[in-house]
Amino acid sequence: MTKTNPGNFFEDFHVGQVIEHATPRTITDGDRALYGAIYPTRFAIPSSAEFAASVGLAEHPVEDLVAFHVAFGKTVPDVSLNAVANLGYAECRFHRPVLTGDTLRTSSEVIGLKQNSNGRTGVVYVRSTATNQRGEVALDWVRWVMVHKRDADAPAPETVVPEVADVVAPDDLVLPAGLDFSAYDTTAAGEPHRFDDYTVGETIDHVDGVTLSESEHMMATRLWQNTAKVHFNTEARPDGRRLVYGGHVISLARALSFNGLANAQLVAAINAGSHVAPAFAGDTVYAWSEVLDKAAPAAWEGTGVGALRLRLVATKGRDETTTLRGDDGKYAEGVLLDLDLWALVPR
Amino acid sequence: MTKTNPGNFFEDFHVGQVIEHATPRTITDGDRALYGAIYPTRFAIPSSAEFAASVGLAEHPVEDLVAFHVAFGKTVPDVSLNAVANLGYAECRFHRPVLTGDTLRTSSEVIGLKQNSNGRTGVVYVRSTATNQRGEVALDWVRWVMVHKRDADAPAPETVVPEVADVVAPDDLVLPAGLDFSAYDTTAAGEPHRFDDYTVGETIDHVDGVTLSESEHMMATRLWQNTAKVHFNTEARPDGRRLVYGGHVISLARALSFNGLANAQLVAAINAGSHVAPAFAGDTVYAWSEVLDKAAPAAWEGTGVGALRLRLVATKGRDETTTLRGDDGKYAEGVLLDLDLWALVPR
Amino acid sequence: MTKTNPGNFFEDFHVGQVIEHATPRTITDGDRALYGAIYPTRFAIPSSAEFAASVGLAEHPVEDLVAFHVAFGKTVPDVSLNAVANLGYAECRFHRPVLTGDTLRTSSEVIGLKQNSNGRTGVVYVRSTATNQRGEVALDWVRWVMVHKRDADAPAPETVVPEVADVVAPDDLVLPAGLDFSAYDTTAAGEPHRFDDYTVGETIDHVDGVTLSESEHMMATRLWQNTAKVHFNTEARPDGRRLVYGGHVISLARALSFNGLANAQLVAAINAGSHVAPAFAGDTVYAWSEVLDKAAPAAWEGTGVGALRLRLVATKGRDETTTLRGDDGKYAEGVLLDLDLWALVPR
Repeated sequence: MTKTNPGNFFEDFHVGQVIEHATPRTITDGDRALYGAIYPTRFAIPSSAEFAASVGLAEHPVEDLVAFHVAFGKTVPDVSLNAVANLGYAECRFHRPVLTGDTLRTSSEVIGLKQNSNGRTGVVYVRSTATNQRGEVALDWVRWVMVHKRDADAPAPETVVPEVADVVAPDDLVLPAGLDFSAYDTTAAGEPHRFDDYTVGETIDHVDGVTLSESEHMMATRLWQNTAKVHFNTEARPDGRRLVYGGHVISLARALSFNGLANAQLVAAINAGSHVAPAFAGDTVYAWSEVLDKAAPAAWEGTGVGALRLRLVATKGRDETTTLRGDDGKYAEGVLLDLDLWALVPR
Repeated sequence: MTKTNPGNFFEDFHVGQVIEHATPRTITDGDRALYGAIYPTRFAIPSSAEFAASVGLAEHPVEDLVAFHVAFGKTVPDVSLNAVANLGYAECRFHRPVLTGDTLRTSSEVIGLKQNSNGRTGVVYVRSTATNQRGEVALDWVRWVMVHKRDADAPAPETVVPEVADVVAPDDLVLPAGLDFSAYDTTAAGEPHRFDDYTVGETIDHVDGVTLSESEHMMATRLWQNTAKVHFNTEARPDGRRLVYGGHVISLARALSFNGLANAQLVAAINAGSHVAPAFAGDTVYAWSEVLDKAAPAAWEGTGVGALRLRLVATKGRDETTTLRGDDGKYAEGVLLDLDLWALVPR
Repeated sequence: MTKTNPGNFFEDFHVGQVIEHATPRTITDGDRALYGAIYPTRFAIPSSAEFAASVGLAEHPVEDLVAFHVAFGKTVPDVSLNAVANLGYAECRFHRPVLTGDTLRTSSEVIGLKQNSNGRTGVVYVRSTATNQRGEVALDWVRWVMVHKRDADAPAPETVVPEVADVVAPDDLVLPAGLDFSAYDTTAAGEPHRFDDYTVGETIDHVDGVTLSESEHMMATRLWQNTAKVHFNTEARPDGRRLVYGGHVISLARALSFNGLANAQLVAAINAGSHVAPAFAGDTVYAWSEVLDKAAPAAWEGTGVGALRLRLVATKGRDETTTLRGDDGKYAEGVLLDLDLWALVPR
């Protein structure tokens, strides 16, 4: 009998099933530095321990997306090793900043199943929760993914499609303990624009582009212990190309968004996300954002913190017109990523 | 007179000679992270400080092979800068886990010399010992390497060929202080297979492959301060290709072996090793293992620890038949590495 | 109105203007490791905490050039985003070693302006100062850069060309607190050559070469938060090539200079520097040095420290003849970098 992990197929999942994912992973300053070597990030809180202290944080967190990628990577061997496609994210909330020395582990509960009409694949919905060494929730999220069946003749399970929120309600966003933007230093942060300077409907072309090369995306994807073969092995796809991990495009777009959103310091939630098209080495990735909403929950009174709901779009080739969809309602040529998130900014 | 290091030639070595190698090197969490960015490793002990503590380790060690590469790299400028080929390893024992903050230095004693019949090269045998900042041995090993003579007319030294053990005896393996697998968590570690689940003669196809690209092998090799020109300089070889450091293939194969050997947590010894063929960027590397032996020394009673002696084979292209040698007794096409090691697993 | 940073144009600068640059950046052991993965550096002080302690340093500093690149990178968005060329450096002094945990920020004062006769560009002179979290100066330097005008019709400012020293006077070099080379261990450091072994006018061919690949220079440049588009984006230049950050060539040449200058442990000052020609992935970079001067200020009596003034030259392709300029007085074919620095060596 083989000892190697074949991954789960559609018929291996059942609603209510809880999967404890291997392997716990301790975050270090090495992750911090590699993140900065792989993505052109300059947000002042993860960049500077002094800045983090100046806004009330007791310790120096790493980028929120470091936690996201590590936590997410753990689910791959159990949830998406036999995936056809990553269909969506929802209700991803960041409950506390992740610090160097924190050890993250992730578990997932299957909350929905729906076999496709072709009988060869099905959609699995999971709610995943990453906790630290004290058992505190660091982040949680829902994702759904299309997975191969092992056996097309296996009977279809009862269809259960969970309700997921289109957007995390502002009152459900979690402010990191101690966060206080009252004395926020826009000069150190790099831009003057605050909460009131952004208007719903406004779009921001982030201008800068990065041409992908083969090593960085593989280094990042390995760092998160994501084992999906297509990212590393030219023999795993008919076209002989290595597919760039979708999360690499998320982090790249987020880093590029500094130029215009330098004060969108922390990601509080990811409301939704679509990997619209695959990215490959040689592609030059740009980004633009649209302000979808603004919120300042009453409970945040006195903290100086507001939240911007942002659509963050990554494109292959720069699109100064910031066009998401064509007249046919389909994503415009060149769109790679359409991400909907809440970010915390100074008021 | 030139101030640059020409390296030692065959006639510069004499039996009994002790070489203190430059340059001491402090291990940090940056090395830990880079190792994880360069190799797809997921072994739970080096991945998680919590997991390491749960098996009795007082501090969070880095991968054993980090220590091996750093210690080995120090010997290159003195021992193998003028090497034709790295012929073999033996008796490599890991005496204690290496922790962040440890500073390693290496010294080597020449224990054998044998001039080749062509008169232009000779084989140098050295026993190398890496110690930490407290003078404690971290690891030691024997290797032999074919080195150019500076002057073909220089007289041949007396031939001394040391006896080296084919395999480190199980009683000579060193358990890290405090290691206790009694409460070992196979869920967190990623696989259920324990000592008793492995059978001598069993082979395991590790399934996954990684296509080498140019930057990662150079970054790793530099990180270990290995200065051999052929790894970095396209002008150093007639074919204009950069040769991948053999240790890079060792670490890659070891990381790939997680899939089927996730509980082979620690490397206790390397019994032998052959770099069968060179590897280059563009090659896709796979691995398989054979269980050569099992041991549970009486002194380990109560620790829950057993040892598997494993042949770890790296191949260019996947070999699901796990074929080491052809009918002619020669290594099969595609074999890159044949490594013989002891690993510690839970009973 | 756009929220993205267009950078400053020539007419945005005025003499006496002080620019506080974003974003403060904390140095970690991750930076130390990445520096060692990207450059083949082996200088014993940054390599080994034990060695650093043995020469009187209270803590383990990172490479001086880590501090230089981080400090320099901060100035790019404000000073050189619209630069045509980086024309020169002067009076760069390292005031104290930078330690892990230090947070650097940089400010610049405009000390000179000179519009070019073409009316479309001008030269901006700035004195930049990087300070740590205690407000202590880590390093400072002067650089001048040719910057585009936004509007060719904008009036020329009064021409002010600052006087800068050709070389930092030895008495102005700063010894790190506690530095004492009296018990310096040349074996651990890797070479026997001390202050008295170097002669003014001597040249040293550093022998080794490294072929540049695309990922490493981008990772380094991002790590320093340097945002100049030409280093990352193949669409930013007509030739579709990514230009290697000049500082990458500086660090590479400095690392290669270990072979012959292993005891030139610390950089005390950079007197001048010219990026003579651009470098690209695929180029093989070599280095040679010339001893320009030697100094041992009276104030250093008893420390065992001397200073070598070195010309460090990086070339594309090895030049064993160490030829800086041709008969026409122009830089010789293949010269990439001409850097003039003071390094601290044991007497």
